[in-house]
Amino acid sequence: MLLLQQYKKIRAHSEEICRPLEIEDYVVQPIVDVSPPKWHLGHTTWFFETFILIPNFKGYKEYNSQYNFVFNSYYETVGARVVRTDRGNLSRPSVADIYSYRSYVDQQMQAFLQNSILEDELISLLELGLNHEQQHQELLFSDIKFILGHNPLFPAYSDKVVFEKKNTPNNGFIAMSEGLYEIGFKGNGFSFDNESARHKKYLETYEIAASLVTNAEFLHFIEDGGYTDFRHWHSEGWEWVNQHNAKAPLYWHFVDEKWMYYTLNGLKEIDSMESVCHINFYEASAYAVWKGMRLPTEEEWEAASHLFEWGERWEWTGSAYLPYPGYKKEPGAIGEYNGKFMVNQMVLRGASVATPKEHSRKTYRNFFHPRLQWQFTGIRLVK
Amino acid sequence: MLLLQQYKKIRAHSEEICRPLEIEDYVVQPIVDVSPPKWHLGHTTWFFETFILIPNFKGYKEYNSQYNFVFNSYYETVGARVVRTDRGNLSRPSVADIYSYRSYVDQQMQAFLQNSILEDELISLLELGLNHEQQHQELLFSDIKFILGHNPLFPAYSDKVVFEKKNTPNNGFIAMSEGLYEIGFKGNGFSFDNESARHKKYLETYEIAASLVTNAEFLHFIEDGGYTDFRHWHSEGWEWVNQHNAKAPLYWHFVDEKWMYYTLNGLKEIDSMESVCHINFYEASAYAVWKGMRLPTEEEWEAASHLFEWGERWEWTGSAYLPYPGYKKEPGAIGEYNGKFMVNQMVLRGASVATPKEHSRKTYRNFFHPRLQWQFTGIRLVK
Amino acid sequence: MLLLQQYKKIRAHSEEICRPLEIEDYVVQPIVDVSPPKWHLGHTTWFFETFILIPNFKGYKEYNSQYNFVFNSYYETVGARVVRTDRGNLSRPSVADIYSYRSYVDQQMQAFLQNSILEDELISLLELGLNHEQQHQELLFSDIKFILGHNPLFPAYSDKVVFEKKNTPNNGFIAMSEGLYEIGFKGNGFSFDNESARHKKYLETYEIAASLVTNAEFLHFIEDGGYTDFRHWHSEGWEWVNQHNAKAPLYWHFVDEKWMYYTLNGLKEIDSMESVCHINFYEASAYAVWKGMRLPTEEEWEAASHLFEWGERWEWTGSAYLPYPGYKKEPGAIGEYNGKFMVNQMVLRGASVATPKEHSRKTYRNFFHPRLQWQFTGIRLVK
Amino acid sequence: MLLLQQYKKIRAHSEEICRPLEIEDYVVQPIVDVSPPKWHLGHTTWFFETFILIPNFKGYKEYNSQYNFVFNSYYETVGARVVRTDRGNLSRPSVADIYSYRSYVDQQMQAFLQNSILEDELISLLELGLNHEQQHQELLFSDIKFILGHNPLFPAYSDKVVFEKKNTPNNGFIAMSEGLYEIGFKGNGFSFDNESARHKKYLETYEIAASLVTNAEFLHFIEDGGYTDFRHWHSEGWEWVNQHNAKAPLYWHFVDEKWMYYTLNGLKEIDSMESVCHINFYEASAYAVWKGMRLPTEEEWEAASHLFEWGERWEWTGSAYLPYPGYKKEPGAIGEYNGKFMVNQMVLRGASVATPKEHSRKTYRNFFHPRLQWQFTGIRLVK
Repeated sequence: MLLLQQYKKIRAHSEEICRPLEIEDYVVQPIVDVSPPKWHLGHTTWFFETFILIPNFKGYKEYNSQYNFVFNSYYETVGARVVRTDRGNLSRPSVADIYSYRSYVDQQMQAFLQNSILEDELISLLELGLNHEQQHQELLFSDIKFILGHNPLFPAYSDKVVFEKKNTPNNGFIAMSEGLYEIGFKGNGFSFDNESARHKKYLETYEIAASLVTNAEFLHFIEDGGYTDFRHWHSEGWEWVNQHNAKAPLYWHFVDEKWMYYTLNGLKEIDSMESVCHINFYEASAYAVWKGMRLPTEEEWEAASHLFEWGERWEWTGSAYLPYPGYKKEPGAIGEYNGKFMVNQMVLRGASVATPKEHSRKTYRNFFHPRLQWQFTGIRLVK
Repeated sequence: MLLLQQYKKIRAHSEEICRPLEIEDYVVQPIVDVSPPKWHLGHTTWFFETFILIPNFKGYKEYNSQYNFVFNSYYETVGARVVRTDRGNLSRPSVADIYSYRSYVDQQMQAFLQNSILEDELISLLELGLNHEQQHQELLFSDIKFILGHNPLFPAYSDKVVFEKKNTPNNGFIAMSEGLYEIGFKGNGFSFDNESARHKKYLETYEIAASLVTNAEFLHFIEDGGYTDFRHWHSEGWEWVNQHNAKAPLYWHFVDEKWMYYTLNGLKEIDSMESVCHINFYEASAYAVWKGMRLPTEEEWEAASHLFEWGERWEWTGSAYLPYPGYKKEPGAIGEYNGKFMVNQMVLRGASVATPKEHSRKTYRNFFHPRLQWQFTGIRLVK
Repeated sequence: MLLLQQYKKIRAHSEEICRPLEIEDYVVQPIVDVSPPKWHLGHTTWFFETFILIPNFKGYKEYNSQYNFVFNSYYETVGARVVRTDRGNLSRPSVADIYSYRSYVDQQMQAFLQNSILEDELISLLELGLNHEQQHQELLFSDIKFILGHNPLFPAYSDKVVFEKKNTPNNGFIAMSEGLYEIGFKGNGFSFDNESARHKKYLETYEIAASLVTNAEFLHFIEDGGYTDFRHWHSEGWEWVNQHNAKAPLYWHFVDEKWMYYTLNGLKEIDSMESVCHINFYEASAYAVWKGMRLPTEEEWEAASHLFEWGERWEWTGSAYLPYPGYKKEPGAIGEYNGKFMVNQMVLRGASVATPKEHSRKTYRNFFHPRLQWQFTGIRLVK
Repeated sequence: MLLLQQYKKIRAHSEEICRPLEIEDYVVQPIVDVSPPKWHLGHTTWFFETFILIPNFKGYKEYNSQYNFVFNSYYETVGARVVRTDRGNLSRPSVADIYSYRSYVDQQMQAFLQNSILEDELISLLELGLNHEQQHQELLFSDIKFILGHNPLFPAYSDKVVFEKKNTPNNGFIAMSEGLYEIGFKGNGFSFDNESARHKKYLETYEIAASLVTNAEFLHFIEDGGYTDFRHWHSEGWEWVNQHNAKAPLYWHFVDEKWMYYTLNGLKEIDSMESVCHINFYEASAYAVWKGMRLPTEEEWEAASHLFEWGERWEWTGSAYLPYPGYKKEPGAIGEYNGKFMVNQMVLRGASVATPKEHSRKTYRNFFHPRLQWQFTGIRLVK
């Protein structure tokens, strides 16, 4: 019954995140990477219906057979689906319909969990579904921020969720000695397949920053012409700067001679002691080059992670998202979860202010395309 | 006070059209040509606020100074605006906010109209605003149909608005004699600037169909390979066919060996006696070529229009949208209404089932790009 | 034998035009509208081979069966073809191969013409082929100018072909009286199908400029902010201005505080008395609006054309390219020549410095998309 | 004088490669990745002029000051340049001009080398220039093959250069033991900066194929539906397959029930024993997944490279192109050579039939975007 309680708690949290929204906010998709909140609510529900209830709960009656088409994200195994760019073009199912869908699936899940003895494999699947929902909870925050933060009226999401916090940055570096380190997940709890297999990695000596780069530090980079000097940037990054006329992190606006940024509480003056946020890999890397340093590899990050505080920002690493030695893709639809994205993305480590509690561990491998800024991302340096 | 009553009636009608909608339906913009219904409601209101109240009603307090940016459609004179493709990315102002905006502006307009003696020029402007709102009422119908008709769930809009009607097509043609005809608006009522100046046009003899082309007739074209034989098509039209893999009018679906179409009442079997609808200029022209006939010019249409029934479909003509001899563009923002679109569009004549009552006359010049299908368009032949 | 002589003369002229070129100049296609010179030489030859020799000359042996794929421009009737954007990607057939192809086809044509009695229909086809080659001679000039004029080295084509000439502009206007005019081709010589049928057009009184707009006059428009004031422009034209950051006619460069332009003789200072050249319809129309005048319709132009000198510039008219009353498309491939382009293009009248001698008449209807500038186009005003 | 001899030999080889070309073949750029051969000849020359002669040879007179604009590839440090997509739009400088440019620079280089005592840094730069020219020699082969192999006439390049060879594939695998391996360049000869610093890498046990995958083996993949089963592919790769309707390696054509391919000697039947060629990373990876194996990492490849024959194909590895531990970017323009491309590319190891003699070593890190097929690439499996 622990699983059922956990199920209820996690499912409820998704709805709590959406509570401050107007109906209209649930619907739009301003860029392809940002999904409508109502799609997140439906898609996470579809996951439980498709992978748990339909194949395992005898007599289960599908809520609406067309929802598979609407809420399948990228599972080729599970058939045709709405093209991703069209998610914001669908006014139906309505928000109310989707809450009914959630409620129906939740009741059925409760009935299923109360009346079944689950095999290990099914427990794993259920855990995957819950972790999947938690990933979408973080996406809900970043997508809602994008939707409201790109509206010319800059509406606040809520004054109760405050993600900005003052730090007392420690400018020190932690020295790590060379040697063979064990990398990857070990233990009994849940982990994604991409965190396996645990393996050895030889690291040379390095020093890793105890704190994240702050807004004040990043402002030095801007004021020193960081966005106008190609020498700091990857070739692709420099193209990105010029195409987007980039001059500062996402959500920063220079208003009346002051740098402001959009937060979930509305437009505010930038807090210089806060960790810089919403920068992409190109920006993180350019900053590091400008500083004469570099980003950590994911193994350097993991090996040192018990020595610093993390969890405020997803930290860009210098590692491409590739299979670990010994990685095995799962068969079937679940196998589409991670492996097929292992090209042209960079790994981020840690977690962020938007990550659900209990959904982080030091072996977690997050990954995004280097151009993306809309997650709660930051920079930790290595020298 | 007649004007005030008319104002109230027309303004109320826009809201009636939207009554069957879910909040979510107000928000989306599936293609650039289709605007979110809430945008139409706001934009028509902005027109009265911007062109009537602000410059003329002393002491008028703008509702929200940022709405100009949100609701300006294409008036360069009136400043910067949300790019057209972004209309569907704005969740705010909310639908409720927009109804408040309408209500505020309507109250102010009432106060203004009750307490002012309007100069002729202002009366003209008010009439323009009302005709403008009526144009958007028709757009509301075509945009709502597109939004719901492109949703994989095919939701019905309402069962009270039925646009499909059975006709008794008359296959006859009306013979017109050659000679000089007077073309363009004459009279005291309202007309758009593009209907002027009235001028002479020499026409050769022609015969114009008494009825519109029906679904049954258009089906013959389809079944005879009309969409697969380049000889019927303009070069641009043939490109359009191939790019879109076009096989039938918009909203037609071949389901279980039968042609169905989406209507505002849901998906139905096609009524063969109904006038074909939702075809673009390329399709109208290809059909005419296949028949060995042609589309009327706008002058041929106007000269004969008292001899047949019209008003069910916007009828594509073979005339490009160009200024009449003697046409004068108005100065200022109002002058941006028509003249600046006089290139690369074709004229449509008549009116449609979706046109508001009292918003049609035989000199009315509607115009759209030849590729567009989403209006209630049809075909009348000439030989 | 007159036809044979004419054939030889016209065919030779295409090769004369290309004589000053380097082999490399024959190959490139900097924009989709500009074809490689070697393609023009091959395509005009293919026309005679495909439409005259293959179907009519018994025992004729095709030069190379794959050339149809390479040199077909847009004739759907004649099968698959290289996509237009790929013409500049083909290094083969080589220039030498194409000259051999020309020489082979010319010999065969000579044998055919000397030994056959041609039916009227075939004579018409041959005349069409010759007029077609003359059209490509003008395209050769405009395409060569584009190829060399967009090279950063600005190489001259030749110093023997001088297209720029000083005029003595006459600022007068010619008054035309209202009435019915006969428009369209009449006579025994060659004309394109789009010049028929001859028909009546009622014109109101108008005054048409005796001279073309000069560089000096157009410079006033530029200096008066013509390219920065949306009020002069069509909506589409204003988009074009902003997308291309247009500031002056094609080939104009502001160098060291002076306006220069690329000519076939190299980069030169602009001659202020010369007629402005290389402007598109949007620019022509914006200029006219700025002047408080307008462009003539094609019928106004034709009705007055015996009263002014023309032939220096293709003159943009305010008429869309549409079929004349009574226009009939030819059957078969030849019918693809004109009719299928009758949408979204504007008519130009007259001829230009680049037009071959004897390839102009007052009923000639040239047509291009309103955005195109690379032809030798100019402006005549009407008030 | 050894350097001078080497200089002459390498420079001469570039011209030998181009000898079989027609002038026209030097000019075209069918896709952005394929540069016109004349551009390669100019660009490699520009390298010596810009980085050696201009800054170091007193009194050196630049050949043509505009050539920097034309022949700079991507060096931001050295100023503005022709956009890459425009290389194929430039007919000038002519091929003859570029050979003159080469000859002029070669004479000057000879004079410089004969009369100067070079500092170590300059010797390094010269070596870099020569290795750079050798890289472009391989590009010349792949670009020429693309230019001729995409021409509908399939012209042969020459019958003297035969790249296809029969192998006696050895189906064995070589077992490697786990442990720490030294990776990266060591020695006195030339190497690129990206091969440094030499560092330790821990490898688990693996078995690496003694031979490359053959055409026959790849054909099994095709015939088993390899290109139609999404499960073998990365998400990005599957998108690539669908967008390009990919069905076989580049240059393969299914003609009259047989698989043919374009070779530099023309179109031929596929040799089943030859190593498969011209596949991209997505295809290489999908093949490996289908086989139940994987691609080697670059370190696995390097550690085992003395145990198998290599040099026939550039072998895709499963490693992203990233800086080695301890990698240092050079300052100035030379530093733009490698480091700025270290994102979103995959490493290839080995060399190919098109690689110049003496331009390969086991630590060489080639890199391309995963979608590119036009290099002489192949597959070696690991299990």
